[in-house]
Amino acid sequence: MVSMTSTAPVASHGPVTRKDVARYAGVSTAVVSYVVNGGPKRVAPATEAKVQDAIRVLGYRPNAAARALKLGSSETLGLIIPDNSNPFFSLLAHAVEDAAAELGFALLLTNSGGSLTKERRHIRNLAARQVDGVFLASVLFEPDLEDLAKADIPCVLLNNDRETEGFNSIGVDLAAGARTAVEHLLWHGHTRIGLAMGTNVSNDIDGRELGWREALRDAGVAEGPIIHSDFTRLGGYLAGQRLLAGPDRPTAIFASSDMQAIGILRAIHEAGLAVPGDIAVTSFDGVADAEYSWPALTTVEQPVRAMAAAAVTALVGAARHEPAQHRIFPTALHVRQSCGCPDGNAPQGA
Amino acid sequence: MVSMTSTAPVASHGPVTRKDVARYAGVSTAVVSYVVNGGPKRVAPATEAKVQDAIRVLGYRPNAAARALKLGSSETLGLIIPDNSNPFFSLLAHAVEDAAAELGFALLLTNSGGSLTKERRHIRNLAARQVDGVFLASVLFEPDLEDLAKADIPCVLLNNDRETEGFNSIGVDLAAGARTAVEHLLWHGHTRIGLAMGTNVSNDIDGRELGWREALRDAGVAEGPIIHSDFTRLGGYLAGQRLLAGPDRPTAIFASSDMQAIGILRAIHEAGLAVPGDIAVTSFDGVADAEYSWPALTTVEQPVRAMAAAAVTALVGAARHEPAQHRIFPTALHVRQSCGCPDGNAPQGA
Repeated sequence: MVSMTSTAPVASHGPVTRKDVARYAGVSTAVVSYVVNGGPKRVAPATEAKVQDAIRVLGYRPNAAARALKLGSSETLGLIIPDNSNPFFSLLAHAVEDAAAELGFALLLTNSGGSLTKERRHIRNLAARQVDGVFLASVLFEPDLEDLAKADIPCVLLNNDRETEGFNSIGVDLAAGARTAVEHLLWHGHTRIGLAMGTNVSNDIDGRELGWREALRDAGVAEGPIIHSDFTRLGGYLAGQRLLAGPDRPTAIFASSDMQAIGILRAIHEAGLAVPGDIAVTSFDGVADAEYSWPALTTVEQPVRAMAAAAVTALVGAARHEPAQHRIFPTALHVRQSCGCPDGNAPQGA
Repeated sequence: MVSMTSTAPVASHGPVTRKDVARYAGVSTAVVSYVVNGGPKRVAPATEAKVQDAIRVLGYRPNAAARALKLGSSETLGLIIPDNSNPFFSLLAHAVEDAAAELGFALLLTNSGGSLTKERRHIRNLAARQVDGVFLASVLFEPDLEDLAKADIPCVLLNNDRETEGFNSIGVDLAAGARTAVEHLLWHGHTRIGLAMGTNVSNDIDGRELGWREALRDAGVAEGPIIHSDFTRLGGYLAGQRLLAGPDRPTAIFASSDMQAIGILRAIHEAGLAVPGDIAVTSFDGVADAEYSWPALTTVEQPVRAMAAAAVTALVGAARHEPAQHRIFPTALHVRQSCGCPDGNAPQGA
């Protein structure tokens, strides 16, 4: 057992420093740092106990603000996402947090709630806090980055499929992903394929809409109806009701997010129709909810963990001094049952 | 229009201060602070433009680390949750972030992933960063708070229905909530009511298990089967399969989380049985997923926003100097269809 008895500090000069702790515990100052900060490297339990004992005995108290002033680093990163209640973004936030923690960075999480005003306020706030970098999943395809540039804070654009001169950006090929989901419905023989498209703050056409259009054009199939609505369950539900009520009801629907698809499933169930028998559905994102909807959704999966790791590497990791780069990750169609395929698979891990 | 032309700084002494900016813009230093920090009070757009112009002209750059050192406050709070991919916790995190932002605090979000080791590392890390306070949704009913107490960092225990001497805590009455969900199934005439109970790191019996037991005992009904499994969709799916396969299949199941209930619905669908016709289901939490499952879940709702607001008030708001208090919030049964009630309601907001 480690003794908890209070002993007079061995060093009597000024406040106790990390160096004092290291000397007392017989370890390097780096090891003290790992113990105090909970990383980035692991410390053997016995060594950790020695350091913790030294901290107690000496009454060492690390001063984060003084340290930040000295290092010129707060060891903190900011993340701005449009909506934490959307599981795609909470998955992304989780993955970014894990990857940042590996390098010893903590994450300030902010939600813009889909509002450009709030997004700008968050950017200014993070700049004022002098975070070491910002991950921005903007509500715009081309966000205003002046405040970050002015404060000299590096930024990685997340969830962005467009290139922005001078900025690192990470995204997926939305159009190519959408194509695979629509082509799969075409392969099942559908020729009336509707689109439930989420609404963006920008007026630019979303890559998923382009992909849907291209797949139909290349197959020589006429475009089905499009309904624009929120990227949410409720948005999908309302879009589903409108798609079902139209004069030329589609036999298949591609939804631009899993959340919308879940709302569409509800609208179809309520109308007394069957999925995929009466209407097939495919969607985009690949969140856990898609696996547990009824029927389970065939969806285009985004490689969230790989994207988060690349974002952290570009912002504060090995690639931080390299020129800004636009990285597009490939998606993969995860086939389940909502498209009409037989699927006897149990959930992952079962 | 505000002139963007670069002018020589009006003050030539040392670095530009907030006071210089205030004088140049003709506003108070508080207003400069609101603009720089994006709150907590709103500033009229015209005034904000004047301040931004002054910042540009004078080349003012706020120094967060110096400010923290001077104020003795990082204006940052920490939040530790067990699992950000559980929508209940992402909802809670979102609500805490909003309530903290109202008071000008940013939020460092960390996930323990259900691991006590990780939780302890996060606590130490947040203490080292000298956050102004920590919200801890622990994996334990009685977490180890020594590190926070040692660093003199106030803490509010979130999602905790037990009282911990000397600490603010916020929770719901799990047993009372579970009772309402089970009593509702009894009211529907069920007499074989199973329990899918989440597994806690502590060995203590969860309030939801007690509530289920008490409701059955008071009704003179024998206890149905209990399956303990993870508080996740997969945990529920596996519990559902076991409950269906047992010798005395229950006609109703109470699940201790909405996530488990969603997994149970999948197991029931896959077995070719109907909900609520063959098996009724009720659950606990009240997340958005419960509204969009098929059928929609009757669930015990936790008042997440009110709990988050109370937690922020206790930690850094009006109640921060009051003695520590244990606050238990009431839950409400939200009746939908999975219990057997008719429900013609469209989703909220439709």
